[in-house]
Amino acid sequence: MTDLTIWTLDWVPPGPRGFVRDLRLRWACREAGLDYAVKTIPFDGRETNHLDRQPFGQVPYLDDGGLKIFESGACLLHLAGKSEALMPRDAAGEAETVEWVIAALNSMEMATVPWWFLKISGVADNPMTGWVGQRLGHIERILSERAWLAAGRFTVADLLMADVLRVPDVRGFGERPATEAYVARVTGREAFREAHAEQMRQFEAADAQRAGAA
Amino acid sequence: MTDLTIWTLDWVPPGPRGFVRDLRLRWACREAGLDYAVKTIPFDGRETNHLDRQPFGQVPYLDDGGLKIFESGACLLHLAGKSEALMPRDAAGEAETVEWVIAALNSMEMATVPWWFLKISGVADNPMTGWVGQRLGHIERILSERAWLAAGRFTVADLLMADVLRVPDVRGFGERPATEAYVARVTGREAFREAHAEQMRQFEAADAQRAGAA
Repeated sequence: MTDLTIWTLDWVPPGPRGFVRDLRLRWACREAGLDYAVKTIPFDGRETNHLDRQPFGQVPYLDDGGLKIFESGACLLHLAGKSEALMPRDAAGEAETVEWVIAALNSMEMATVPWWFLKISGVADNPMTGWVGQRLGHIERILSERAWLAAGRFTVADLLMADVLRVPDVRGFGERPATEAYVARVTGREAFREAHAEQMRQFEAADAQRAGAA
Repeated sequence: MTDLTIWTLDWVPPGPRGFVRDLRLRWACREAGLDYAVKTIPFDGRETNHLDRQPFGQVPYLDDGGLKIFESGACLLHLAGKSEALMPRDAAGEAETVEWVIAALNSMEMATVPWWFLKISGVADNPMTGWVGQRLGHIERILSERAWLAAGRFTVADLLMADVLRVPDVRGFGERPATEAYVARVTGREAFREAHAEQMRQFEAADAQRAGAA
């Protein structure tokens, strides 16, 4: 029995598989040794079928014994409050972890996701490229000096930043050896690999179901 | 005497005045009745002159008795931990406040800031317009149904969301009466008006100093 339920879509096309953000929550739960269940809402009609539970029509959202939380970043901070494996308990370590969680969301992902969006939209001479490159330059400098973003150890901030940095092909922005090594190391963790495999299996199983229903 | 110091730039050109994010921290401190000092780093050389204190070369950052925090969102969450005026203390109210702080940063501002960046960069047929419009549509629906984002009362989530929503001219995206009324109401608070005036005065005073030095 578990009180934690991660809600995601029942199916997605091949493109986003391995990147749907429920992965961040599965990964965090596995790092923390927290049991969780996964439940799904239909992909078809997702623009409106769960607006009462996620006001932007996105996934994931988390149910923790009746407490419902959306935004993967907020879910990660909530999970971090449950386990020292995700965030240290001293004030300085906690503040540093939170600031790097926010930096991943608001300084890095604010550049990378619009960059990716313009790229898949086919916008010529992607006008976000310079911004992403600048932010990647800052991160490369930081990761050249230390192994982890916060508190001298793995935290939920590394989990999130590595997941954010998976989206742009870092090598396309020039030599970024420290960043490449960091992403490889963080996503090489067993909890990531298991969470990733679990998401892939779920969507593959859904392929068979949709084929059967068609 | 105060332990809280907000760090910002000593001067900025007229364009960003009233929008530099130290305003969020001044505003939050005023809502919470927390004393604060403001210290500055030089605008000239800002790309590299404070990278040791803010790894992306941005402002603001906060010093709370030696604990240094960057990212305005992380600073706001830290201040919210000091005062119930910014965030309720029950688990559900706190979780709801945090999720809306993250939503402001990662669902709304992730669209509006790149939209603004492409706009001032002169990119034709701003490719972020549709995304901003969609997110504004969701916010309009939510604000049509309630006065505050979280916990049925003003929280730091409203402070942040209203500040984010000031950036795009909401009226340019069609009729958004609930959103317009919300932004007007939240930024009509005395603490916002005082924080805004304080920032404007600081940069105006710096104009005179720069003119004298030139």
